[in-house]
Amino acid sequence: MDRYSIGIDLGGTNLRAAAIAEDGRVLSKVSGNTPVEAGPEAVLADMAKSAAGLREKFGTSNLAGIGAGVPGNIDMERGVVERWSNVPSFTGCPMREELSRRLGTAVFLENDANAAALGEHWMGAGRGVDLVLLTIGTGIGGGIISGGRILHGHKGMAAELGHITVVPNGNPCGCGNRGCVEKHASATAVAAMARLAGLGKDLSAKDVDELALQGNAIAQAIYRSAGESLGIAIASLINIFNAPLYLIGGGMSAGWDRFAPAMLAEVERRSLTYRLTLATTRIERAALGADAGLFGSASLALRGQS
Amino acid sequence: MDRYSIGIDLGGTNLRAAAIAEDGRVLSKVSGNTPVEAGPEAVLADMAKSAAGLREKFGTSNLAGIGAGVPGNIDMERGVVERWSNVPSFTGCPMREELSRRLGTAVFLENDANAAALGEHWMGAGRGVDLVLLTIGTGIGGGIISGGRILHGHKGMAAELGHITVVPNGNPCGCGNRGCVEKHASATAVAAMARLAGLGKDLSAKDVDELALQGNAIAQAIYRSAGESLGIAIASLINIFNAPLYLIGGGMSAGWDRFAPAMLAEVERRSLTYRLTLATTRIERAALGADAGLFGSASLALRGQS
Repeated sequence: MDRYSIGIDLGGTNLRAAAIAEDGRVLSKVSGNTPVEAGPEAVLADMAKSAAGLREKFGTSNLAGIGAGVPGNIDMERGVVERWSNVPSFTGCPMREELSRRLGTAVFLENDANAAALGEHWMGAGRGVDLVLLTIGTGIGGGIISGGRILHGHKGMAAELGHITVVPNGNPCGCGNRGCVEKHASATAVAAMARLAGLGKDLSAKDVDELALQGNAIAQAIYRSAGESLGIAIASLINIFNAPLYLIGGGMSAGWDRFAPAMLAEVERRSLTYRLTLATTRIERAALGADAGLFGSASLALRGQS
Repeated sequence: MDRYSIGIDLGGTNLRAAAIAEDGRVLSKVSGNTPVEAGPEAVLADMAKSAAGLREKFGTSNLAGIGAGVPGNIDMERGVVERWSNVPSFTGCPMREELSRRLGTAVFLENDANAAALGEHWMGAGRGVDLVLLTIGTGIGGGIISGGRILHGHKGMAAELGHITVVPNGNPCGCGNRGCVEKHASATAVAAMARLAGLGKDLSAKDVDELALQGNAIAQAIYRSAGESLGIAIASLINIFNAPLYLIGGGMSAGWDRFAPAMLAEVERRSLTYRLTLATTRIERAALGADAGLFGSASLALRGQS
């Protein structure tokens, strides 16, 4: 039996977990049944139960450890959840210690967007290369692999890429800024633009994408606008990192063909570094979809670090 | 005699070199007398001569090596100057090999803005901590120390921080972009704003600074505007890196008191990460002035790496 690891992805609704072999094969995937709103105690129990079930199936001796991706800020030294804005009850939860105690094995925590970047770095679109991942859904999350490692920053808060300013006097953001790229290019921003443009009150980004596909000019302009905003942010990221790979993941990436042409044109116009490194710089869709975080979380334990 | 290193800073006019001890003491500083416009052969001879003179004074056996900061893009693997936009004759110059051959010692090359960041990291305002340095003069250069090392990017072109977009439809830049921060906050941008505002046709940024100091409201507004543009860029950099230190160096930093209040207000408004880490995130003037590059170049050899 191969060495393997268990990755847990704490999502907005409930958790998913997978046993993944050292070579990247998914041995088994399970879902938890506790909503995160149930709070830390219930969720910790669900995490431990899911992981224990997978371990029972694939063995204890060859288990490298357990990794978990959490949609919040992690105190990396102490393994404590510091800020999980949508579910404040987790603030201060000593998740690493609690899981490690319940399961008797090494546990690694990571922010979910960072875990997704690590997943793409391990088994996705960016195997072995430094990359910058933008995960675009209701907001825009970010993960950066630099020098083969996750860029954490001194307080574990790096890669808040959704809050790069792309329009100085643009749409106000809950973070206090105006013109954050996530206020101009997320699924939420696309829906808001559709409402503003009179396309319909309750359209989702997916609905707008569908309209754009059917040839609706306003829907197409909305996706172009989102693409341009993304392009401004990515051009700056290229000028800052000169990384070989920039990935777009998350639900919005389904509309790639609608926003990518405008995005790529904007990047090409705005970044001399991109034009000078066209042969070696890729801008692509992420490859692992919703499983990126599972792969990344699992790889934390296999790497023995984040 | 202590172990020491020789740092060479190739500036816009001629070179400067210094012998610097392992503990950071400057043992001696010299200036070359060949203008960089004289081309690679003459400049290489001047570099070798300056370094040889210092080595004669402080000994060969305790010399760790020679480092040089070059205002251009370096092929880090081959030690070749790839792009030095103001002096194209250097393109392709195998500077590392040439100097190493002439001097018979290890030579390390680095981009000048990266070397300045490393200098501040070694002996300046950011001793031992990760930092992002913006060097503001006629343009804006950048250097990033991440995980204790210079962030190079896959083609040695990282940290082009002057080309972060701060105004999507702002002033056109030679790089092809519009609204690069260096087109809104460099000394050149300040002078251009003064001209546009009717303050005078041939005022330098220093003249505008002087007027602002004397209470001229237009000059003060120009420095505020530069500060705001810097603030937009720094807020994004904080959201991206969550580094503990952001430094402003270069000639423009003399006007710190005129632009910093607007810059800091803008950063505070725009970056939640900054507000959450006020106690541990510093935004300051660089400490080493024009010597940052000398310290950084010298430290390349003492570190035995970049």
